[in-house]
Amino acid sequence: MPTLNEKAASLGASRSAIRELFEYGKSRSLEAGGDKICDFSLGNPSAPPPAELRAAYFEALSSLAPKDLHGYTSAAGDFETRKAIADAITTEESFEVLPENMFLTTGAAAALCAVFFALTSSPGDEFAGFSPFFPEYRVFAGVAGGVFVAVSADTKNFQINFEALESAINEKTRAVVINSPNNPSGAVYTKETIKTLAGILKKKSALFGHTIYIVTDEPYRELVYGGVTPPFVPKYYDDTIICYSYSKRFSIPGERLGYALVNSRASDCRRVYNAIAGGARVLGHVCAPSLVQKVIARSARLKPDMTVYAKNREILYENLTKMGYTCAKPDGAFYLFVKSPFGSGAAFSAKAKEKDILVVDGATFGCPEFVRIAYCVDTSVCERSLPAFEELIKGGRGK
Amino acid sequence: MPTLNEKAASLGASRSAIRELFEYGKSRSLEAGGDKICDFSLGNPSAPPPAELRAAYFEALSSLAPKDLHGYTSAAGDFETRKAIADAITTEESFEVLPENMFLTTGAAAALCAVFFALTSSPGDEFAGFSPFFPEYRVFAGVAGGVFVAVSADTKNFQINFEALESAINEKTRAVVINSPNNPSGAVYTKETIKTLAGILKKKSALFGHTIYIVTDEPYRELVYGGVTPPFVPKYYDDTIICYSYSKRFSIPGERLGYALVNSRASDCRRVYNAIAGGARVLGHVCAPSLVQKVIARSARLKPDMTVYAKNREILYENLTKMGYTCAKPDGAFYLFVKSPFGSGAAFSAKAKEKDILVVDGATFGCPEFVRIAYCVDTSVCERSLPAFEELIKGGRGK
Repeated sequence: MPTLNEKAASLGASRSAIRELFEYGKSRSLEAGGDKICDFSLGNPSAPPPAELRAAYFEALSSLAPKDLHGYTSAAGDFETRKAIADAITTEESFEVLPENMFLTTGAAAALCAVFFALTSSPGDEFAGFSPFFPEYRVFAGVAGGVFVAVSADTKNFQINFEALESAINEKTRAVVINSPNNPSGAVYTKETIKTLAGILKKKSALFGHTIYIVTDEPYRELVYGGVTPPFVPKYYDDTIICYSYSKRFSIPGERLGYALVNSRASDCRRVYNAIAGGARVLGHVCAPSLVQKVIARSARLKPDMTVYAKNREILYENLTKMGYTCAKPDGAFYLFVKSPFGSGAAFSAKAKEKDILVVDGATFGCPEFVRIAYCVDTSVCERSLPAFEELIKGGRGK
Repeated sequence: MPTLNEKAASLGASRSAIRELFEYGKSRSLEAGGDKICDFSLGNPSAPPPAELRAAYFEALSSLAPKDLHGYTSAAGDFETRKAIADAITTEESFEVLPENMFLTTGAAAALCAVFFALTSSPGDEFAGFSPFFPEYRVFAGVAGGVFVAVSADTKNFQINFEALESAINEKTRAVVINSPNNPSGAVYTKETIKTLAGILKKKSALFGHTIYIVTDEPYRELVYGGVTPPFVPKYYDDTIICYSYSKRFSIPGERLGYALVNSRASDCRRVYNAIAGGARVLGHVCAPSLVQKVIARSARLKPDMTVYAKNREILYENLTKMGYTCAKPDGAFYLFVKSPFGSGAAFSAKAKEKDILVVDGATFGCPEFVRIAYCVDTSVCERSLPAFEELIKGGRGK
């Protein structure tokens, strides 16, 4: 008789709701033909990677020795790569970022796991984050016995509900997790939001006698519209740890490259960094994939091409709001978070699925009245989906 | 004041002893010149990847659409890749292996972590393994609160010390971890060893009323000499889980591709598989790196080129034994595990370091009287090291 970790067995059997829909979409596409399905389920970027990135793959493969290309790197990643990234951020943000405080990981997910592990000093330690939130936070926070605590949303403009935050923080709180530009709302936190958050955390850290970190999960940092600039959090709060990924910026989510970066101004920065390195080690991290490290060393200053996303955003936002749907216009990322005309996101998602439109129930993100539309797809998919969205809301209104 | 996970902080600060020596070697090379140092510290393969593998990189990058190359794959990995691997094993071993029981991971380390997580049903659950063993087993077994239990070595021929095993297994034992071809001894378990092990585990599983798994960690499966063939463990024991990596076979340790494979004959195979998938999810696994998945789909039947390792093995084994060193001739992998002429491996490693020869103290692997020489280096390094080894043993004898 097998005796297994029941939690693991059920997590493995269930998958995330998003992945579940994605897998359904893949098999439904094979069955009905890909052009029948409008799959808005997954944040799998549709914009091609920048041409220079593609060229960097060929250049690295042609010019480097196999051992340099494919050999182990240091656990923290090639210093050259970390320096290229740190220098690019330092220039971009006019704020010094040091390569020795950067630990390359296999994507932001692994960075978050390592950071949650590092910051959990006792079982039951809490990580507070705001609805709507990335559902895997719950899973990742549990890795060392921590707990993710969802703070109610500000569903009007998706900034922070500070009143709810103040009452959520207690002596067990280790960090507040933020995600701006936000998945799934597309909101970008303003400078005022970050400043107010920093003020509250300074006060609470003093009150409870230990540091409360900001863990800022920002794979969408460069994916913004209309000249919006996300504030660089380390400028406003010393005890900040950034979790980053190149998945969305360069449309390479399969390549699994990201990092955890400790603000040089953080108290006891070296020990925090070591705890993250130790967290990564416990989770089976040996080094981040090597070839893509070389590629990023050559591409650290490249920007994403936002043309397709900007176009898709306009098409969907303009048309859906005209049809009567309610949603905030996203300032970043590539998601629309739309209020369900059927009361619940689950009902909307189910009815849409019947019309071969795949959208994710907002309950997944802690906001059960919404659905998420990931518009990182071909523009033709957005255009093709409009009649179905129109029929859906007519049906919803008629009810 | 930061409140951190002290275990993580100390693991991150300490690094593994092997990695520590590797980092020392890198900085010492810069200081003294690379041709002064004989760095036998790390299992970073020196043989170039097969030419066909290199060609597969260019072919995949040139022929596939960016989204297929670099997009998310299923969490378990591309089905096409898993099928190519499973088919190759099925042919090679004349034993059916199914792609749906294979979960691609970021290297064998991540596979081991996910498996240990999956099999730990209560804190303190035990994983037994034989000295000499890969030291990170201790760290990885701890991920879900499990404990690695070292079983005394058979230091004569590095098969299994069955008497010690019988007394190490108890009601808390979840699995026995084996590693053949072995790092660091180079031993390959015989068919008789596997059969005897299987017999004991069947008996103990019945006795304790729960399955005791074999977790077989075999990144060196194809790296064998003189026609030796490692027995395929699933043939001899149903409840077997293979943890594999392409790091050593194709000299691509930086690329982080491996898998966990549940034997189709395992009891409740699907639930075991789901628990491993859940374990991976908790540890921040999203998917294995995508480009290398495409490359392996095209290269699953390629064999490693053993020419350099075979040559290095001869040079070191013949010369060192002639000088008076004691070691078993390795049948696989690319390590010599040499008895220290100075009583302890620590003393040998320290004295060798003074002569710019980097070898790892066997205490790291649970055998404190030995050192490990990783001969996956250029042949010139082996040749260059001989005078220093000669001086060392003369000094040792003279003591």
